[in-house]
Amino acid sequence: MDFTEKTLESRRIFEGKVIKVRLDRVQLPDGRESEREIVEHVGAVAIVPVDEQNMVYLVRQYRKPLERVLLEIPAGKLEAGEDPLECARRELVEEIGYYPRQMRQMAFYYSSPGFSDEAIYLYLATELEPRESPGEEGEFLDVHRLSLDEAMAKIMAQEIDDGKTIAGLLLAAKHLNT
Amino acid sequence: MDFTEKTLESRRIFEGKVIKVRLDRVQLPDGRESEREIVEHVGAVAIVPVDEQNMVYLVRQYRKPLERVLLEIPAGKLEAGEDPLECARRELVEEIGYYPRQMRQMAFYYSSPGFSDEAIYLYLATELEPRESPGEEGEFLDVHRLSLDEAMAKIMAQEIDDGKTIAGLLLAAKHLNT
Repeated sequence: MDFTEKTLESRRIFEGKVIKVRLDRVQLPDGRESEREIVEHVGAVAIVPVDEQNMVYLVRQYRKPLERVLLEIPAGKLEAGEDPLECARRELVEEIGYYPRQMRQMAFYYSSPGFSDEAIYLYLATELEPRESPGEEGEFLDVHRLSLDEAMAKIMAQEIDDGKTIAGLLLAAKHLNT
Repeated sequence: MDFTEKTLESRRIFEGKVIKVRLDRVQLPDGRESEREIVEHVGAVAIVPVDEQNMVYLVRQYRKPLERVLLEIPAGKLEAGEDPLECARRELVEEIGYYPRQMRQMAFYYSSPGFSDEAIYLYLATELEPRESPGEEGEFLDVHRLSLDEAMAKIMAQEIDDGKTIAGLLLAAKHLNT
């Protein structure tokens, strides 16, 4: 069966620096009409950095939409035209001060496909080399180092409440067979 | 260190049925000012339904933001004031025609904390009882039944590209010790 929703009309609501919002009027498979509220996003990368002691690096960062600090794997938005792998290496140096000599893509996924096209490239970073971090303007975060086992225990205790961090750590554990 | 971003001004951009968008001017921890584009969302539930043969039920559904069909675990938006667990039971019956006699919360997480407050309650549903599905108006989907092992293989082959489905299946495998 063809589930395609044909666009009858598309209206631009907002053009921001990070997101764009549009309202589409669509024709459903049964012929009826509906509306779709859509958030366009440039996409992002997220990285699970694991060192030779099986320690993982997470960052604590204030998230304005939630008005609180969240514990997350390092991540960042893609810049226009930027290669996701290059972006991931750049973000890792900026956020935790390590350059990954090995990077493996573990997933490419949509974070909220019901209303947004945001896609996330998820990497496993290993063979970490200390590297002077230039920092990132307007970015404030704390780095936390914990064992992959501790991180998994936190997930099972529901103490991690960031989607990419849950997916990333579970995937890393499978890739590293721990 | 206090990373709080103080709201200086908040402007409503859009009030939709599913999302609301606002633009906040904030003061950063170093005193400088910036803007935050924020998508408010009512929140959602997602369910990994596993039967007694260790088979899992996924749905194929058209996602307008991506203009394609995605393979996902059953999910749905919360209705105003609705209990997440009740919502999850309702969505499961509507989408796959099974009522779960056992439900276990595996995670509560934010899907895109950089720009949205969307939260997802993620459940493991077992002891599935066939139940007449009333269907859901304007919802078109196909149900796919596959083994949890096959689903895990699909994740590792990067053939699943929905965030909640990756997190949900990996968590279910850990909870069920498969």
